[in-house]
Amino acid sequence: MRAQVLRAHGGAGNFELVNIPEPELRPGAVRVRIAAASVNQIDIKIRDGLPIGPTLPAVLGCDLAGVVEAVGPGVAGFAVGDEVYGCAGGVRGQGGTLAEAIVADARLLAPKPRALSMREAAALPLVTITAWEALERAGVSEADHVLVHGGAGGVGHIGVQLAKARGARVATTVGSAEDAAIARELGADATIDYRQEAVADYVARLTGGRGFDVVFDTVGGANLDRSFAAAALGGRVAAIAARSTHDLSPLHAKGLSLHVVFMLIPMLHDIGRERHGQLLREAAALVEAGTLRPLLDPARFDLAAAADAYRHLESGQACGKVVIDIA
Amino acid sequence: MRAQVLRAHGGAGNFELVNIPEPELRPGAVRVRIAAASVNQIDIKIRDGLPIGPTLPAVLGCDLAGVVEAVGPGVAGFAVGDEVYGCAGGVRGQGGTLAEAIVADARLLAPKPRALSMREAAALPLVTITAWEALERAGVSEADHVLVHGGAGGVGHIGVQLAKARGARVATTVGSAEDAAIARELGADATIDYRQEAVADYVARLTGGRGFDVVFDTVGGANLDRSFAAAALGGRVAAIAARSTHDLSPLHAKGLSLHVVFMLIPMLHDIGRERHGQLLREAAALVEAGTLRPLLDPARFDLAAAADAYRHLESGQACGKVVIDIA
Repeated sequence: MRAQVLRAHGGAGNFELVNIPEPELRPGAVRVRIAAASVNQIDIKIRDGLPIGPTLPAVLGCDLAGVVEAVGPGVAGFAVGDEVYGCAGGVRGQGGTLAEAIVADARLLAPKPRALSMREAAALPLVTITAWEALERAGVSEADHVLVHGGAGGVGHIGVQLAKARGARVATTVGSAEDAAIARELGADATIDYRQEAVADYVARLTGGRGFDVVFDTVGGANLDRSFAAAALGGRVAAIAARSTHDLSPLHAKGLSLHVVFMLIPMLHDIGRERHGQLLREAAALVEAGTLRPLLDPARFDLAAAADAYRHLESGQACGKVVIDIA
Repeated sequence: MRAQVLRAHGGAGNFELVNIPEPELRPGAVRVRIAAASVNQIDIKIRDGLPIGPTLPAVLGCDLAGVVEAVGPGVAGFAVGDEVYGCAGGVRGQGGTLAEAIVADARLLAPKPRALSMREAAALPLVTITAWEALERAGVSEADHVLVHGGAGGVGHIGVQLAKARGARVATTVGSAEDAAIARELGADATIDYRQEAVADYVARLTGGRGFDVVFDTVGGANLDRSFAAAALGGRVAAIAARSTHDLSPLHAKGLSLHVVFMLIPMLHDIGRERHGQLLREAAALVEAGTLRPLLDPARFDLAAAADAYRHLESGQACGKVVIDIA
């Protein structure tokens, strides 16, 4: 099969399109003919050498949508020909999705939402599971005023929709007027141009100075300090990028809770994988109900151009998810 | 009335025993003739200048037990002669308990547990409310293996008992064989001499390397990093001293939740004060049931020797709570 193989950690130029053997079926897994894959920030970090990735040379890529073409021993609930989606590759011990086929742990997969194309379905798994876990652990309900950072970004645009689905009032940060319009279409009640408005100013404007009950930080780094600053007394902050060093005094002064979400843990440690398949089933129901939809960046890439897809996400210019058409 | 007045921020030598006017009753408050007060780590920080304290000169001290001698307008549920306990002073806007009387917000008080002496009751409020909130926010249940740091300390000895009351398996760190024996008497299933055993070693010995479901950090500073290290995948850490700077990578790698508890928030911000009175009623029921008891350091101090009580707590040699006999 054709695959993009990463020869060495580093930039997108280290990918090479080659022919490699089809991966072998194993118990508990299915072989999926991949129709589309999507690129996530974590894929870039793994490409650059984050030590959760596979031993090189290897195929990277977490997210996929495709068709089941073989079912391994011990797998219930999937049959040849089923359209599926999931986040089932890209880290050590797993295959990758920058290839024409993958052998994936069946517990990580779910039936593809019928209303979505393969491209659209491939955009959802990692960001949806991430946002779902963040909002669930933060206990978001209709009583909450929620700030989602990056409402036009990969995880953020799902966070806005899932927070609205939980009945919360939702504000979101964006970087342009175009992204603000997109975030409002996704359901955001208010938008904040983070390039124009300081935290204290939008906390005053949108919460009367009280702060947000929940802040969902999809950005990390210095933005995490801004998230602490934007939270109300007793508030909850959910973060998906927290490998940095921070003064925790604001958490102390306000009695905050910080929930750090790392959705690759089930793949890395073989714990709770069934939950991921289940979440994707629940997400598919939200899609069918019209409550959840993926936001796809308009740029198109095929497998041969995978490196360009990575570069596009790295540029910071992508709006929503960057998807690669595999077949 | 006699009171210890702090003249300037700094060491225990800055207290002065003087006569000052009795505090005036106000709506929503009661005047309590104080029988005993206890000293907490936060009292030392406030004495040293933490900017949540009252404007000096002022009377410090949070915890008290005593007898209601006057009831202000709008107060229900208390009458003259009632024995009460609570954490109702020591920060800006409130009175202090290093005095013969205090006017305290009635919402912060509860009837003193009948089984306890005034000394014993005065030991409980701040540490009990703190530990209660920590274990509640961490969702401690009978399914959890909990590590409580400082099981012979002020907050820690309550944390051990409340975690056991929730049905959890409890390990605790101590600094001596004597403290280990005390922690076991309080219900700890296992003890760890933190001076002798590294985190990885006791995590291996007590959890088979898996880590603790919940770590209750009553120490802060570098110990918070040890708490992150001792937590299991998806674990919860509750901390009561988190004004320091930390690398959050361990939270990311394990997908941890960090709950920072600051029990003075209701006094400082006039939010949720009823909850404190209610918690002390629930704690009193646990005391009557024989499930909860305070651990008192054997050293005795009267109001004139309040500075020595502070010095004793600061020395790190106290075991359990340091109490001051006021009357």
